[in-house]
Amino acid sequence: MIRGRVTGRVWSSRRIDTLPNGALLEVSLDGGGSLIALDPLGCNEGEAVLITQGSVAAAYFTKIKAPIDALIIGSIDEKN
Amino acid sequence: MIRGRVTGRVWSSRRIDTLPNGALLEVSLDGGGSLIALDPLGCNEGEAVLITQGSVAAAYFTKIKAPIDALIIGSIDEKN
Amino acid sequence: MIRGRVTGRVWSSRRIDTLPNGALLEVSLDGGGSLIALDPLGCNEGEAVLITQGSVAAAYFTKIKAPIDALIIGSIDEKN
Amino acid sequence: MIRGRVTGRVWSSRRIDTLPNGALLEVSLDGGGSLIALDPLGCNEGEAVLITQGSVAAAYFTKIKAPIDALIIGSIDEKN
Amino acid sequence: MIRGRVTGRVWSSRRIDTLPNGALLEVSLDGGGSLIALDPLGCNEGEAVLITQGSVAAAYFTKIKAPIDALIIGSIDEKN
Repeated sequence: MIRGRVTGRVWSSRRIDTLPNGALLEVSLDGGGSLIALDPLGCNEGEAVLITQGSVAAAYFTKIKAPIDALIIGSIDEKN
Repeated sequence: MIRGRVTGRVWSSRRIDTLPNGALLEVSLDGGGSLIALDPLGCNEGEAVLITQGSVAAAYFTKIKAPIDALIIGSIDEKN
Repeated sequence: MIRGRVTGRVWSSRRIDTLPNGALLEVSLDGGGSLIALDPLGCNEGEAVLITQGSVAAAYFTKIKAPIDALIIGSIDEKN
Repeated sequence: MIRGRVTGRVWSSRRIDTLPNGALLEVSLDGGGSLIALDPLGCNEGEAVLITQGSVAAAYFTKIKAPIDALIIGSIDEKN
Repeated sequence: MIRGRVTGRVWSSRRIDTLPNGALLEVSLDGGGSLIALDPLGCNEGEAVLITQGSVAAAYFTKIKAPIDALIIGSIDEKN
């Protein structure tokens, strides 16, 4: 898994119909670069998150074959 | 997923027979580099798109084992 | 597989429910960069480990569809 | 998918028995670097090709579990 | 697939029990960097090898779910 921080949200009105509902969040990666991950947790901008990639991201959705290759699987606890 | 912008189209007359119909679009990636993605949405040159990669791209095609590792899954809404 | 060394642990209280129990260890990779891997072996900070990535990491968990793309599969023997 | 150009052929006499018949072509990638791809189309040196990577490359072979992670899926049409 | 050259062997006494028997070889990649691949062929140090990566590497093992993401599939013929 990789770490990142939510920087925004991407909207796509014209999309394939197997794309699950849920926010598509733009995440800046700790190692550099960024990606778009589906968020089932309702994360906020600025939140540190844990991301899984590849076919295991899609396997989270059991009723549809979701075309998802990046999924937020946890919010990382940060000291206050 | 990753973001990119359509820059052109690739034609391949001599190809394996399990390659699905549909445009093979060249996409310039926001993070640098480019790839060729299958487009089921009919995107145009210059359009911003969302791409999924790996075996989940192929899983979109349920009747054939499509040898596809990159699929456009949405057109990204852009402010006008 | 790739080699790395455990540098810390990541805690995530708010997480999806299919994330297996087990430590999420931060691993500094010999080739540069770092990732977060699930650790079924109970490794310690500073330990050299062998990591597998992708869907084979998730396949280690047979009763759940674990959203895991990196797994520690061994502790590397080091000369004392 | 990615684009590349065939630069040569690799021969391997001692190999695992599930490796399918077919040429193993060395391909120089447009984005830099090179890889070895299985060629079911009979491409020639200097030919521009389209390559798919990962498990979808192996899925092309339906009778064996082919240990193939890169497959030439088309020859790219080039203007003369 | 990618090419590399065997540079050594990694030993792991404490490992998960689904890791198959066989040497874990360290391979220096022609494109730079290195990885650890399982070797079913009995390759020697200095030998040029062909490596497949990802879930297709694990699929070589049919009786167990091997947590392997890199497999040596052939020894590359070299002119003497």
